[in-house]
Amino acid sequence: MISVVRDKCPLVHCITNYVTVNDVANAILAVGASPIMSDDISDVRDIVSISQALVINIGTLNKRTVESMIAAGTAANSLSIPVVLDPVGAGASPYRNRTVDELLESVRFSVIRGNLSEMAYINGSASRTKGVDSSMTEADADPVKVALAVSEKTGAVAAITGRIDTVAKDGRVARISSGHADMGRITGTGCMLSGVIGGFVGTGEDPFIMTANAIAAMGAAGLIAHDKAGALGTGSFRVALIDALSTMTDEIINERGQLEIN
Amino acid sequence: MISVVRDKCPLVHCITNYVTVNDVANAILAVGASPIMSDDISDVRDIVSISQALVINIGTLNKRTVESMIAAGTAANSLSIPVVLDPVGAGASPYRNRTVDELLESVRFSVIRGNLSEMAYINGSASRTKGVDSSMTEADADPVKVALAVSEKTGAVAAITGRIDTVAKDGRVARISSGHADMGRITGTGCMLSGVIGGFVGTGEDPFIMTANAIAAMGAAGLIAHDKAGALGTGSFRVALIDALSTMTDEIINERGQLEIN
Amino acid sequence: MISVVRDKCPLVHCITNYVTVNDVANAILAVGASPIMSDDISDVRDIVSISQALVINIGTLNKRTVESMIAAGTAANSLSIPVVLDPVGAGASPYRNRTVDELLESVRFSVIRGNLSEMAYINGSASRTKGVDSSMTEADADPVKVALAVSEKTGAVAAITGRIDTVAKDGRVARISSGHADMGRITGTGCMLSGVIGGFVGTGEDPFIMTANAIAAMGAAGLIAHDKAGALGTGSFRVALIDALSTMTDEIINERGQLEIN
Repeated sequence: MISVVRDKCPLVHCITNYVTVNDVANAILAVGASPIMSDDISDVRDIVSISQALVINIGTLNKRTVESMIAAGTAANSLSIPVVLDPVGAGASPYRNRTVDELLESVRFSVIRGNLSEMAYINGSASRTKGVDSSMTEADADPVKVALAVSEKTGAVAAITGRIDTVAKDGRVARISSGHADMGRITGTGCMLSGVIGGFVGTGEDPFIMTANAIAAMGAAGLIAHDKAGALGTGSFRVALIDALSTMTDEIINERGQLEIN
Repeated sequence: MISVVRDKCPLVHCITNYVTVNDVANAILAVGASPIMSDDISDVRDIVSISQALVINIGTLNKRTVESMIAAGTAANSLSIPVVLDPVGAGASPYRNRTVDELLESVRFSVIRGNLSEMAYINGSASRTKGVDSSMTEADADPVKVALAVSEKTGAVAAITGRIDTVAKDGRVARISSGHADMGRITGTGCMLSGVIGGFVGTGEDPFIMTANAIAAMGAAGLIAHDKAGALGTGSFRVALIDALSTMTDEIINERGQLEIN
Repeated sequence: MISVVRDKCPLVHCITNYVTVNDVANAILAVGASPIMSDDISDVRDIVSISQALVINIGTLNKRTVESMIAAGTAANSLSIPVVLDPVGAGASPYRNRTVDELLESVRFSVIRGNLSEMAYINGSASRTKGVDSSMTEADADPVKVALAVSEKTGAVAAITGRIDTVAKDGRVARISSGHADMGRITGTGCMLSGVIGGFVGTGEDPFIMTANAIAAMGAAGLIAHDKAGALGTGSFRVALIDALSTMTDEIINERGQLEIN
């Protein structure tokens, strides 16, 4: 499916955090799509109108950018442009929670991707006492159940990334068991993945299948990067991860992506 | 000419986008200049007054930073400090267009560097229907004519980067045919180049010659990085590009920069 | 002492500049702590309340974020969470100076880390005529005296980094002579170090000892990165620096950190 991304080179408008934005742009380019970052209310409607996907990431949210997220998201909806949500830190603070609530009320998302804590918040099952550093584990909640519930509640493809990744939509479930623990030792792999999902769904192909394939591509890249650079340290691992994404093919995803669709 | 940059180590004040700002800072350091990023209206006039060049990049513009760009630009003009403009996305949205118009009315630029679409917008010849992802090509407009026209209109050195790069001023034209397509597969090579141009013109030497040399340095770095890391992927290419800039010499620019001044 | 950081994995809330924020996050992860970036007034009090340290870096300050710094800092004080200040560019502009003054009046810092110019400003001994590019040297002021004076004035551990690094508190002085000049050829080593100090003091151990150890860890990493990648260029050096931090151990700090506590 990455071949379709490389063929169509969708333009992906990102309203994203300033911590990982450069990695997000490079990851989107690496899979063959094209990123454009724009977050001002005066600009976002016009930029989204020339894009094939919109990615909203609340990592470093503020009043100015939240307003832009809603304006861009509603514009994308009216133009039938798919919108991806990365609810960074949902469950960790009231402001993040209120913002996620507001986004879910105002914007119809094609895909929502988060870790288990964030998705459990959206599902209404999150423990508020856990911080962002102590993510919920599969012992706290079943990712398949949470993903199915979030999908039913929002109408979006729900993707929960963790030790094993889960994608759910309309009762369909995909599980991806590639990826490597090294990915949690650098910042931004989640944000990069959300950007990459934007590129995959920006092709216009089925969002459930494309989201699962995007995650499998990232998981395969994580395994390849670990093989190549895991022993050197996290700086080299990060470079190798982008290298692996930029040389990713459908064959490699099939071989190493460990994607099962039920 | 890079030896002059390394000798004088000009301080380059950048008001630039948050996507590529880290790469811009590292590229400026790599060529021997010194970056300082400051974008608040309360700070920019003082920071520009201790700098030898100002670089304005509108990649992630907003109302707050546009105000700072104009304040810093006019302060730089009054102090005879050269100002470089990178009109990211000009032609792609009305807000970007209005901002470029406002900057050109308020600030006298020493150098304007963009791709063909952006520079054609400034020349008044841009097709508004093209997005940022589908840049105009040489089939749509002749870069030499556009560069000469932008230079005549603005009084600035006009630099158009693309497959072949063009620099024009007062009827003089330079063409640089180094560089590599890999540079378009990572984010920020244009922004980095604009920052590097700031370092080169911050020496006080002739802006036309220094801009052409800065582009030749970046083009040579692109070729060297491709030789070294092109086969590994875009993560490694990006690291190798900064490596090549940091070890760049006038001799390498002469050998691999492919600069012709007519 | 880095083993304690890796054991406890403190959550480090950073309000930091957008130039080096990604490197700061990756450096914090590399030493075994966990970063969270949040800079909006609606969010910072809640985020700091779940964190074990707060790092305030004024590199790209503006009115919105300065307000958040003060709110987060006072909240951290009331919760006895250690706060680290990186006064980037203090002495270089009136706005930076006023902001540092305001922060020092409003917030009680556990650690203040800067270069000699910045710390001399805090000490009231800075020459205002020097820009950020021409830092004061040991010929202009004695780092040990400045550090002791800043510590006495503020009650914080005062750390001055330079050719030799100095840490002072309550008459105690530590000197660290590791590190390498290559660290000044990339952006962000100072910011990364301030983030890493946040991780070290977030363990709850003695701030003077932990700050000295954090600087020794960074200095050792600089030496290792130079050995490995110094000849390749600054792009590779930066990758190697993160690699070295991510594989740093107490044994390596002891061997290569060159830390002397008097």
